[in-house]
Amino acid sequence: MTYTIAEARTEFRLASWARTACPSPLQEMLTAASRPGIISLALGMPDENLFPTREFADATQLVLATNPHALQYGPHSQSLKAQVVALMKRRGVTCNEGQIFLTAGAQQGMCLLARLLLEPGSDVIAEELIYTGFQQVLEPFQPRVLTVPTSLETGMDVDAVEAHLRRGARPAFIYAITEGHNPLSVSLSKEKRIRLVELARHYGVPIIEDDAYGFLCYEGKLEPPLRALDEQFVFYVGSFSKIVAPGLRVGWLVVPEALIKPLSIVKESTDIDSTTFPQRVLNAYLETGQLTDHIKHLCTQYRLRRDTMLEALREHFPDETRWTTPSSGMFVWLENDHIDALDLFNTALTTAKVAFIPGFAFGVGAVRLKPHAMRLNFSYCSPENIKEGIARLGRLL
Amino acid sequence: MTYTIAEARTEFRLASWARTACPSPLQEMLTAASRPGIISLALGMPDENLFPTREFADATQLVLATNPHALQYGPHSQSLKAQVVALMKRRGVTCNEGQIFLTAGAQQGMCLLARLLLEPGSDVIAEELIYTGFQQVLEPFQPRVLTVPTSLETGMDVDAVEAHLRRGARPAFIYAITEGHNPLSVSLSKEKRIRLVELARHYGVPIIEDDAYGFLCYEGKLEPPLRALDEQFVFYVGSFSKIVAPGLRVGWLVVPEALIKPLSIVKESTDIDSTTFPQRVLNAYLETGQLTDHIKHLCTQYRLRRDTMLEALREHFPDETRWTTPSSGMFVWLENDHIDALDLFNTALTTAKVAFIPGFAFGVGAVRLKPHAMRLNFSYCSPENIKEGIARLGRLL
Repeated sequence: MTYTIAEARTEFRLASWARTACPSPLQEMLTAASRPGIISLALGMPDENLFPTREFADATQLVLATNPHALQYGPHSQSLKAQVVALMKRRGVTCNEGQIFLTAGAQQGMCLLARLLLEPGSDVIAEELIYTGFQQVLEPFQPRVLTVPTSLETGMDVDAVEAHLRRGARPAFIYAITEGHNPLSVSLSKEKRIRLVELARHYGVPIIEDDAYGFLCYEGKLEPPLRALDEQFVFYVGSFSKIVAPGLRVGWLVVPEALIKPLSIVKESTDIDSTTFPQRVLNAYLETGQLTDHIKHLCTQYRLRRDTMLEALREHFPDETRWTTPSSGMFVWLENDHIDALDLFNTALTTAKVAFIPGFAFGVGAVRLKPHAMRLNFSYCSPENIKEGIARLGRLL
Repeated sequence: MTYTIAEARTEFRLASWARTACPSPLQEMLTAASRPGIISLALGMPDENLFPTREFADATQLVLATNPHALQYGPHSQSLKAQVVALMKRRGVTCNEGQIFLTAGAQQGMCLLARLLLEPGSDVIAEELIYTGFQQVLEPFQPRVLTVPTSLETGMDVDAVEAHLRRGARPAFIYAITEGHNPLSVSLSKEKRIRLVELARHYGVPIIEDDAYGFLCYEGKLEPPLRALDEQFVFYVGSFSKIVAPGLRVGWLVVPEALIKPLSIVKESTDIDSTTFPQRVLNAYLETGQLTDHIKHLCTQYRLRRDTMLEALREHFPDETRWTTPSSGMFVWLENDHIDALDLFNTALTTAKVAFIPGFAFGVGAVRLKPHAMRLNFSYCSPENIKEGIARLGRLL
């Protein structure tokens, strides 16, 4: 859907990019998928039944009873930064508090980095299918996106990245989702991680590493993220949305220390850049030391749901269907050349009361990639509903 | 302080505006003014001792105990929008829920509007001295700012606005702070409100009306804001930061309904645009109906502090000093041709342990306006500290 002046029935003028800006397909499908009675395998939402709500309520009372500045403006919490440093260590990353920048969620982190790095005429390197929220981040800057394909086994095609750089492209950054890829649910192989970081260093091109799903791990130990390999050219984006709760809107960046002040300037203009009430409460919750066990619990629960979904796919989907077995994240990516995913989306929603996201919704640019692919979320629904949802989809095929 | 590539010791390239972006003077002075033992008349902060902390704690427990989605992503709260409509009515503005857009504070509201309205080469009309946070909002877009003077009795020079428009300027918007002006603490006269809105309509130029301080009223009833005069060309920016608490980061816009969807698109790219936990708690607090009495209480307390400051100025400041008597907001604006405000700032901070903001810090552009002026905040300190702070400043003069 496109917004034009005529539709807006206003005589003032919006900026040109805003006049053609569209709601993300995800947002529109969210509305459809959130109707009562729908089994939603559509969105990347954690299950609220798994939130540490009681512990968070305790932390809230503690903060409001003991911190007279709980609801006031204030500089960023050093204590929360220290908590993030400890968390990153568990992810295999060594960093210090001076490299941590607190954000209102991962989305804001990416948005701030884009504002710092992009200017008119910038290039960006990204995969052909990526998180739509990042595409929205790019939209106001209208950069040229140099796309690269992705292997469903080993992740981003790093040869293609190198080819762009060899041909002389000097993008403002490379966007990478190394773990629990959204939407392709692949993990970048160790060899490719090393090569990608080498390319970044060699050509002086920073990498924005989106690790929103990286703490949800279902197979032994994950590879450390790119940030573990380089602290100068990898700008890491982290989030508490999937491991604590999204309604807090708290995330963080791990960046070279020299970027902290420019980031603070941009964030100040965006939202004052003050420690918020949820940050203070989150810090109190983290100080109880319960997060490690909570993440373990989440991984157990989401692993069960992933396995339930994979089992149901084997049982109910046609033989020629291919899907990923994600070692992290919240999605299964599925392809079947006989499926038209948009048709299926519409039919599934109306007749089977099941929602998912057609793969093409994640395509960068105008070309409709992957019309036969689907992204299935396994974190939001109970195992019972996952089983039932997949069975219903299977009956439609 | 200016950031350059060299200082950053990085080899990647920031966008050109970011390479020269500076922290706001306010931010730097905040750091200085927040040292222990300083009486700070510097910042536009409410007093945390006046926050409804206990009531907010109750609301928090209620939400966490009864709303299973309390910490989840979710669409904007219709109930909170209805609360805002009721609040606006008390401010003399008729609007409906379809015209309300919830933001993470007034600053985000202004930032989102700027992103929707500005593009390279845009003009903007603003007063010569305005809230620095709004100047930061403009910075990434580098618009030409057409400035107009301000009368300390009747506010923005609307003749000068008209002159710009008559000469052919077609700015993306006019920025106006009609009530409790920051930093000049003047209220725009009724006649000027009417003329400004007529100009906006006649030339098809929207007005961004910053009403962050408009609910704090010390003299009978305030004039309704510009939004009461026009619903098509006035984009109203409101905030809960000064009337409830800033750590919540909740504000709102009142805009033509056609702007809601574009705003949502921009906000989604900025921070996902989800109802946050503080929004849900704020809504529960507002539903108790306590806000009206709370605002009355704030006005009584802040009026007392304003009067204390004015009394102390009469007692301790030289005769030739001129200051405003604000009917709303949090500031007194003071001028004395024999004062160098920056010298006084430095001396006051080191020898008298009192902080304020020199007036020039609010100047738009490179020219150092008002070297003899000071902005004094009366909301943050207790009456005793206000009296003491002004006495100490007086002794320095």
